[in-house]
Amino acid sequence: MNDPLASNDCLYLGIDGGGSKCRAVIATPDHQVLGTGVAGPANPLQGMEQTVNSIIAATQSAMEATGLHCGFDQLIAGAGLAGVNLPGYYEQVCRWQHPFKRLHLTTDLHIACLGAHQGRDGAVLIVGTGSSAYVQVGSTHKIYGAHGFLLGDNGSGAWIGLEAVKAVLLATDNLGPPTNLSAIINQQLNTENTTLSEKMASASPAQFAQLAPLVFHAAENSDIVARRILQNAATYLNALADKLLTIYQPRLSLLGGIGERISPWLKSSVVERITTPQVSAEIGAIIYAQTMAGNNHTHDAERSSSPWV
Amino acid sequence: MNDPLASNDCLYLGIDGGGSKCRAVIATPDHQVLGTGVAGPANPLQGMEQTVNSIIAATQSAMEATGLHCGFDQLIAGAGLAGVNLPGYYEQVCRWQHPFKRLHLTTDLHIACLGAHQGRDGAVLIVGTGSSAYVQVGSTHKIYGAHGFLLGDNGSGAWIGLEAVKAVLLATDNLGPPTNLSAIINQQLNTENTTLSEKMASASPAQFAQLAPLVFHAAENSDIVARRILQNAATYLNALADKLLTIYQPRLSLLGGIGERISPWLKSSVVERITTPQVSAEIGAIIYAQTMAGNNHTHDAERSSSPWV
Repeated sequence: MNDPLASNDCLYLGIDGGGSKCRAVIATPDHQVLGTGVAGPANPLQGMEQTVNSIIAATQSAMEATGLHCGFDQLIAGAGLAGVNLPGYYEQVCRWQHPFKRLHLTTDLHIACLGAHQGRDGAVLIVGTGSSAYVQVGSTHKIYGAHGFLLGDNGSGAWIGLEAVKAVLLATDNLGPPTNLSAIINQQLNTENTTLSEKMASASPAQFAQLAPLVFHAAENSDIVARRILQNAATYLNALADKLLTIYQPRLSLLGGIGERISPWLKSSVVERITTPQVSAEIGAIIYAQTMAGNNHTHDAERSSSPWV
Repeated sequence: MNDPLASNDCLYLGIDGGGSKCRAVIATPDHQVLGTGVAGPANPLQGMEQTVNSIIAATQSAMEATGLHCGFDQLIAGAGLAGVNLPGYYEQVCRWQHPFKRLHLTTDLHIACLGAHQGRDGAVLIVGTGSSAYVQVGSTHKIYGAHGFLLGDNGSGAWIGLEAVKAVLLATDNLGPPTNLSAIINQQLNTENTTLSEKMASASPAQFAQLAPLVFHAAENSDIVARRILQNAATYLNALADKLLTIYQPRLSLLGGIGERISPWLKSSVVERITTPQVSAEIGAIIYAQTMAGNNHTHDAERSSSPWV
C-alpha cells in the first residue's frame, strides 16, 4: 500500500476540549483506540495556560494507557476546542508551540458532529456545561449559540445552575417565589443565604453546571421554580433543534452531559428525530486530522485557517 | 467649644467606591467641601489592588484640589464600597494597611442612604452600573439586591447592556426577534456580529453599562426588543421600590447613573414617592465616619465590625 498512514508508525491523537474537561484518545489510523486520558478544562476563553496544560496532561495519560513508548512528536493530532469559534482564541491556540507532529485545530462542535455521524452530514445539539449546535451538509456548515457562559449557553448545565442561584437570591430578597432550591443549593454549597452570592460571584461555568442535577431533582419533585427553569431551557433548545432540522433532517444527535437529562423536557417533535451518535468526539477529532492530512477529501471547505469565519 | 472636631486640624475624607469609579471628597467637620477627586473602579469583587489604587488616586486628587499640604494620616476617612456587603470582601478591605488616621468602612449603599437623607431614616434605590436597595429605620436596616453582576444587578446599567448583547446574539442566530440594537451595538463596539461575543465575553460590568444609553435610545425609537429589556428592568425595580415603601414611606431616593433615565419607565405609584437626595454619598461617608468616631450617636447599631450581617 502507498498510504503511509496505514502503517502503525503513525498514531493519531484526538482531543476534545471543553469548559469542564479535556478528553484525549490515541488511536490507529483505522480508529482502534489504544489509550484514553482525561484532564481539566481546555477552553481558551477560560485561559490559554490551563488549556495547554490540560491538553498535555490528557495526552500524557492517554499515552501511558497505551503502554507504548512513543514521543508526542510522532502523534498527528486533531483537536476540537470550545471557544475557538471566536477567531481571536483560534489564533491564540494556533500560536502555541505544540509538541505534536502536526496539530489540526477546529471547534469542539465540529469534531462532535464528525464523531456523531462518522464524518458524514448531520447535526448535533450539544448540551453540557455550555450549549451550542452545529450542522454540516456537504461543504457548508452553520454554528448556533456557542457565545459563552456570560452571553449565551442558554439551556446548558451552567445556565441551569446560574438561573437556580439567581432564583434563590430573588427568593431570599422576597422578590421571587419561594423554592426548595434555596435549601438544596445552600446545603450543597455548604453555605447560608447571606454568603451564597459571595460563594458564586465568580464561580466557573463548571461550578454552576454542578448545580444542574439539583435543579432536575427539584423539578422532578414538582418545585415550580425549578420546573420553570427547565421549561425555559427546553424552549431555547427546542428552537435550536428546529433550526437544525430545517437545514438537515436525517441525522440529529443530542450530545453533552446534560443531553440525556434534558431530553424528557424537550418537545416530542424534536425527541423523535434524535439519532444515536456513532463514535465519540475524540474520534471525530481524529477524523478531522485525517481529513486535513489529505487522507480523506470530503471536507475540503474546512481547510482554511479559520474554517468557520 | 469642647469639640475638637470643630477645629480644622481634623479633616474628613469621604469615599464612594463602585464598579465604575471611586469618588473622594475632603471636607471640614461641618461638611464644607474643600476638594474632590475621582479615580477608577473601587469594588473589591473586581480586585483588591485596583480598589486600593483607586481610593489612593481619588484621595490624592481631592487633596491636590484643596490646595492644602496635609498628610493622609491627618484624614479621618469614611468609605462606602460596593461588594463589602459580602463578609469576605469586607474583611479583605479591613486588612488593608491604609494610610489614614482612621478608616471607617461600610457599604456604598449605606453611605448613599446616609447622604440622601442626611443621616436620617430613609430608603434608596440605586440604579447605576449595578442595582440595589437599602432602607434604614432607626437602628435597623435592610439590603435588597447587591448580589453582583453575574448573579443579580437586575435593571442596572450593566444588566441592560448585557441583555442587549444577548438579544443581538439571539437575533444573529435567528433565534430571537430582529432589533435595531444589532446595528447600533456593533457600530458602537466597532465590531461585527461574528466577533461581538468575543469582544464582550469577558467584558466588565462598566463596559456593559456603557451600552445602556444605546438601549434607551433604541427604546425611545420604538425598538420592541429594547423596550422589552427596559420593561423587564422596570418590573424588577418597581418590585424593589415596593419592598422599600412597605418598610418606610416618607423618604425614598432614586440614585445612580441610570436612575434619571429609567425613571420614566417606572410605575407612577413609585415615581410619585421619589424624594430628592440631600447630600452626596461621599458626604454620607463622612457622616458615617463622624457617627463611628462618636461625634453623632444616632447609628450605634452600626458599630459592630460587619454591621450588615
